[in-house]
Amino acid sequence: METLLLSKENVASLAVQSDVISAVEDAYRAYSERQIEQPDYIGFHCGTGGEIDFKIGHHKPCSIISAKASSGGFRDNRVNYQLPSGMGTVLLFDSRNGALLCVMDGSLLTGLRTGASGAVSVKALARRDARTIAAIGLGNQARMQIRAIREVLDIQSIHAWHPDGEKAQAYKADIEGAFGIPVVLATSARAAVEQADILVTTTRGKGPVVEASWVRPGTHVIAIGTDQKGKRELDPQLFAGAKLVVDSKGQCVEKGETANALAADVIRRDQIHAEIGEVLLGLKAGRSNDDEITIFDSTGMAIQDNTTAYAIYRKALAGGVGSKFAFFES
Amino acid sequence: METLLLSKENVASLAVQSDVISAVEDAYRAYSERQIEQPDYIGFHCGTGGEIDFKIGHHKPCSIISAKASSGGFRDNRVNYQLPSGMGTVLLFDSRNGALLCVMDGSLLTGLRTGASGAVSVKALARRDARTIAAIGLGNQARMQIRAIREVLDIQSIHAWHPDGEKAQAYKADIEGAFGIPVVLATSARAAVEQADILVTTTRGKGPVVEASWVRPGTHVIAIGTDQKGKRELDPQLFAGAKLVVDSKGQCVEKGETANALAADVIRRDQIHAEIGEVLLGLKAGRSNDDEITIFDSTGMAIQDNTTAYAIYRKALAGGVGSKFAFFES
Repeated sequence: METLLLSKENVASLAVQSDVISAVEDAYRAYSERQIEQPDYIGFHCGTGGEIDFKIGHHKPCSIISAKASSGGFRDNRVNYQLPSGMGTVLLFDSRNGALLCVMDGSLLTGLRTGASGAVSVKALARRDARTIAAIGLGNQARMQIRAIREVLDIQSIHAWHPDGEKAQAYKADIEGAFGIPVVLATSARAAVEQADILVTTTRGKGPVVEASWVRPGTHVIAIGTDQKGKRELDPQLFAGAKLVVDSKGQCVEKGETANALAADVIRRDQIHAEIGEVLLGLKAGRSNDDEITIFDSTGMAIQDNTTAYAIYRKALAGGVGSKFAFFES
Repeated sequence: METLLLSKENVASLAVQSDVISAVEDAYRAYSERQIEQPDYIGFHCGTGGEIDFKIGHHKPCSIISAKASSGGFRDNRVNYQLPSGMGTVLLFDSRNGALLCVMDGSLLTGLRTGASGAVSVKALARRDARTIAAIGLGNQARMQIRAIREVLDIQSIHAWHPDGEKAQAYKADIEGAFGIPVVLATSARAAVEQADILVTTTRGKGPVVEASWVRPGTHVIAIGTDQKGKRELDPQLFAGAKLVVDSKGQCVEKGETANALAADVIRRDQIHAEIGEVLLGLKAGRSNDDEITIFDSTGMAIQDNTTAYAIYRKALAGGVGSKFAFFES
């Protein structure tokens, strides 16, 4: 039996954005159809700020079990080990027989599938005439969001804000260089948000909070940065009267932006409109009119890693990409 | 950065029994010193009787996080996929920086480290003059127990019993052929047990129960087969007056043979004498005299996989064994 090995460079060459968006849609649908198993993740704090997390999930219709190990926050890696601060590895198993199909570098996977989550929500929830994005948080994931959303929307301009002017300039140069989309550097978070048809927040949940009064009617809000207890990007009052769609009810009420709105008593749990999978399946409505504010609370799920990695694996097989290794003689 | 790949054949060539015994002793000591993190395992039932389990652990003094995926019970694999019914994979990470050090076939690991657990308990708890083993359960793990125990004890004979005469004959042929230790096939479980200085039970916990009255004073009992709720190999009355040593109090009171004795009200929780790591560390006494019955309840821990795989990894590095693969360019 041979196992496919895919390097980071292999994954980069195989990961077409539109495929990743389809894979994440499939993940959301399968999740809301209860076709998957996805236990709580396992995390280890490793000192010097580093963490290693394991996210494991079973996509039953595809008979694929995935296990992603991802590290992050190892700040001194470059100096001490000539390594990036975060890395990743994904294993794919065939759940019909337990065989290890693939070992894949997973450094790019989380960024790709999280970027795709925003794009999926744009398709499902943003106004058809949305053209302007506000970006609060300008790191790697802010770039991945734009990379994915441009696949599903004709973005005319991005209003971006970051307290660090150098980071803001770097973001502007990267986005304009890569995609030719004009980036306006706003003088305040408020000035950026007030321009938004679509607001994307990708801070680490310790950054500026977006106030409810800044957000115009009709805005679609993509809340990415809050994926653990204690993080916060949005004023809970924004949830009053907004249409709230989550990736996973179970996760979002525990550790998403939704948890903050629940804790602040702005909404009750039964006011979560839908899981995005339910909207994609047609079980729940998406946007009802051009004036409502929609919020997509994305905490990230193992099953997104599963479907995205499996799509990359199938593409590698079809294209003869990667190396094979026999962990044992059959 | 390069990751070491070790095939099943590599692991077989590297896994010296005495090293595995040392590794398992280290695991037990580190566990009882609270130097490790070991979350509950994650398991998936996959249909047709197959299961895939993930056991993940952090050995903090060594800065190694291990993740073992092991499958089992895929009965139709040979016919349908030309694959064994169970396989395994182990990842080793450096917890100082998150780097993936090694991907290792894990098919042999569970058997090796479980076999070693019995040998460790023999060193710590059996009579010095013990020479005769009774074996109830004659599968692969029964063979692994003998392979390990012979490293620490001069075994003069084995009294073995199995309801299936063919399986009993195969065990006798294998053990006598491999180790030159005479195997007496007993006419009943009782007849075997009554001969024992050391009793090893490795049924899957659905087999015959060893009755308390069969076990002679001074016997050391190695209870391997009960590692999940609902399994049972021993008469709970055997625990009355015996010295009970466990691998993990937390696990054994939940799903070991100890759980059955607690449920039957034969012992209270505070009558668990020690974790074996506490005995190895000298924090608790081992055997006090030649008449007491000692019981070692082994449920199996992720940290045994961790230390065993790490020992194999270091040996591979030292001997230049295995292949290297760059999952990314540093």
